[in-house]
Amino acid sequence: MAGEQAPIVTLLTDFGTDDPWVGSLKSVLWQVQPAFKIVDLTHAVPPHDILSGAFTLYRCYRDYPNWTIHLCVVDPGVGGPRRPILVVTNDRYFVGPDNGIFSYVYANEVVEKVIHVTADHYFRRPLSDTFHGRDVFAPIAGWLSKGIDSSRFGDEIEDYVRLQVPQDRIVGESLIKGEVCAVDRFGNCITNIRAATLQDLGQRANRQRFKVLVGGQEIPVVTGGYGQEVPLFALMGSSGLLEIAASSRSAAQLLGITGPGKEVGVMGA
Amino acid sequence: MAGEQAPIVTLLTDFGTDDPWVGSLKSVLWQVQPAFKIVDLTHAVPPHDILSGAFTLYRCYRDYPNWTIHLCVVDPGVGGPRRPILVVTNDRYFVGPDNGIFSYVYANEVVEKVIHVTADHYFRRPLSDTFHGRDVFAPIAGWLSKGIDSSRFGDEIEDYVRLQVPQDRIVGESLIKGEVCAVDRFGNCITNIRAATLQDLGQRANRQRFKVLVGGQEIPVVTGGYGQEVPLFALMGSSGLLEIAASSRSAAQLLGITGPGKEVGVMGA
Amino acid sequence: MAGEQAPIVTLLTDFGTDDPWVGSLKSVLWQVQPAFKIVDLTHAVPPHDILSGAFTLYRCYRDYPNWTIHLCVVDPGVGGPRRPILVVTNDRYFVGPDNGIFSYVYANEVVEKVIHVTADHYFRRPLSDTFHGRDVFAPIAGWLSKGIDSSRFGDEIEDYVRLQVPQDRIVGESLIKGEVCAVDRFGNCITNIRAATLQDLGQRANRQRFKVLVGGQEIPVVTGGYGQEVPLFALMGSSGLLEIAASSRSAAQLLGITGPGKEVGVMGA
Repeated sequence: MAGEQAPIVTLLTDFGTDDPWVGSLKSVLWQVQPAFKIVDLTHAVPPHDILSGAFTLYRCYRDYPNWTIHLCVVDPGVGGPRRPILVVTNDRYFVGPDNGIFSYVYANEVVEKVIHVTADHYFRRPLSDTFHGRDVFAPIAGWLSKGIDSSRFGDEIEDYVRLQVPQDRIVGESLIKGEVCAVDRFGNCITNIRAATLQDLGQRANRQRFKVLVGGQEIPVVTGGYGQEVPLFALMGSSGLLEIAASSRSAAQLLGITGPGKEVGVMGA
Repeated sequence: MAGEQAPIVTLLTDFGTDDPWVGSLKSVLWQVQPAFKIVDLTHAVPPHDILSGAFTLYRCYRDYPNWTIHLCVVDPGVGGPRRPILVVTNDRYFVGPDNGIFSYVYANEVVEKVIHVTADHYFRRPLSDTFHGRDVFAPIAGWLSKGIDSSRFGDEIEDYVRLQVPQDRIVGESLIKGEVCAVDRFGNCITNIRAATLQDLGQRANRQRFKVLVGGQEIPVVTGGYGQEVPLFALMGSSGLLEIAASSRSAAQLLGITGPGKEVGVMGA
Repeated sequence: MAGEQAPIVTLLTDFGTDDPWVGSLKSVLWQVQPAFKIVDLTHAVPPHDILSGAFTLYRCYRDYPNWTIHLCVVDPGVGGPRRPILVVTNDRYFVGPDNGIFSYVYANEVVEKVIHVTADHYFRRPLSDTFHGRDVFAPIAGWLSKGIDSSRFGDEIEDYVRLQVPQDRIVGESLIKGEVCAVDRFGNCITNIRAATLQDLGQRANRQRFKVLVGGQEIPVVTGGYGQEVPLFALMGSSGLLEIAASSRSAAQLLGITGPGKEVGVMGA
């Protein structure tokens, strides 16, 4: 691992790539920390859609090495009273606004502390009211990567914003309830149903094969890749989340699903 | 600052990202200068729209460290008589075609010299007629970053192309006239009205509060971020330019503005 | 050249940039090989369109230095029986699925060997069934760049998948037959007709000037850039392929061409 020599910072924003903001953010990152390896997660989060950004982050952050810094700027409240925060888990950092963008992190990781960043001598000058990605969050990530202890950025808080993120859950002993949280470029419907939950259901219900219930249809849960003989199927995706897919077609289109929210059940087959 | 060890080059083009040209440009940059940190400003300039590219560059180049090289390729005249140029200001470089893409730079920076690049031994061989981004401009940027003196690239010229860029101006003693020059992803309308011009108006008219006049509406100029109580407002944006915004909505949509050109006035409130 | 110190890896996928997969792939590349310079060719290959991806790769790979590793993931058969392969030519590497994505490489390069990669101790663990870009191909590229001999990845195969890619050809002694294979962002229609084929025709037919026949129209082949006096013209593009263009307009629109497949002829003028 090159973690020691070359810290990785990932970027997730709703900036798009038509405007020049992502570049300005990278400029500041490299001015503070020339050694940064910068990775774009996506800049296509729908404008101001905190929940969508939170789920996209959830889908991928575990693909990064320990102590990666995940910089997330979906920030409709920029310049207002919302707090800049630094989240320290047992193996990584998250930097961004305290608006719930890290809600899936809180729900799934061991959170060591959440710091309200007030040490404004780390911020870029002059400090704008409209672009804290460049002026606040990028400098925090930069200085953090240079070994500044997290406690130097401000005090710990407990009342950080947790959004009600849709969690999968076992109902009774035989049913998982979840929902579609994203539709990807291929039309796969990515749910919030985790591998661990499926395993749990299997043990409780003493089953090894499962089926998905969605929109009145029953869809088999399969193993292997996207080349299946059945037209519609569900499988454990690369993020450890169950997804509904179709062989070389769009499952979303076949099911009439256009975005997040559709309820999904899983039971023994 | 890492400027000495790792030169930064920024890219602004109308290439899009569906075709593989941006990559070819980066390949040449790194072949000449392996130490380059490469930052994409945007590749979504509308095809051949020099004025749009010029304004996008203007919005962001001051976010980069001194002696950054700004490579700009919006180049409808490629392969024809238009000259490749190198612009040297008192603290940065610009490389691109002499078609007016640097007009805002000329209007706002201390230009030390503009060089018509004729030293073709720096160019890539074979030299194509259709892709000077790869064959001419990227090599110039690379060799420049390696310490080749700007005078080695060619002779200074005075007759470089300056487009008539819309400049803000004070009319009488009480009115700034400007216009909307871009609409961003969030629907904010970015004008060409600079902070310095607003300050100047304030001194002349002895005012500290201002309002924007646009399409028959009066809109207050506020401080703070995008979370305001009024539905429409104007504020000084992160590029030092006045923008018209709406709280969690698209100001452009509310005002019926779809692109550049709409006249905007500012006066004391 | 920095090839020795900093290996270049290029990425071509159908992942798009809305989902966070490209980032995950880069994370793995940098975990195995921190020195990688990563260049995006494009991620906008239409989903599962192997032939389109193959042609986009063909348009640009020769712009990269010797021993660049070209990682290509258009992979509808992921998780199924299709083989992961490593193609070694006389001066570069290609890594991806054995589904024909490298068909233009086979047709145009000196292929030293094609290896069916079976050395799964190089793969990422746990190995998913749905994301071999991250779990299989990126690690192969990383370890290859670290000096692991290609023979260590698996055995040579001869029966690798070659798709029927449309090749230009001389018919009789006076006509080149080819077709439009891509339309670029500017509306230029890029054909599969190579400079060498045009030169060959010139010698056989003893001609130095040519015209293109497409959709009942005759279009002159010109030299120079895109600023021509005729409304429609053809010229040798920056990839060494003949393209049909229009001065500051879309040739595709003028000709009613919306995608690949349109037949094109070239003959002496």
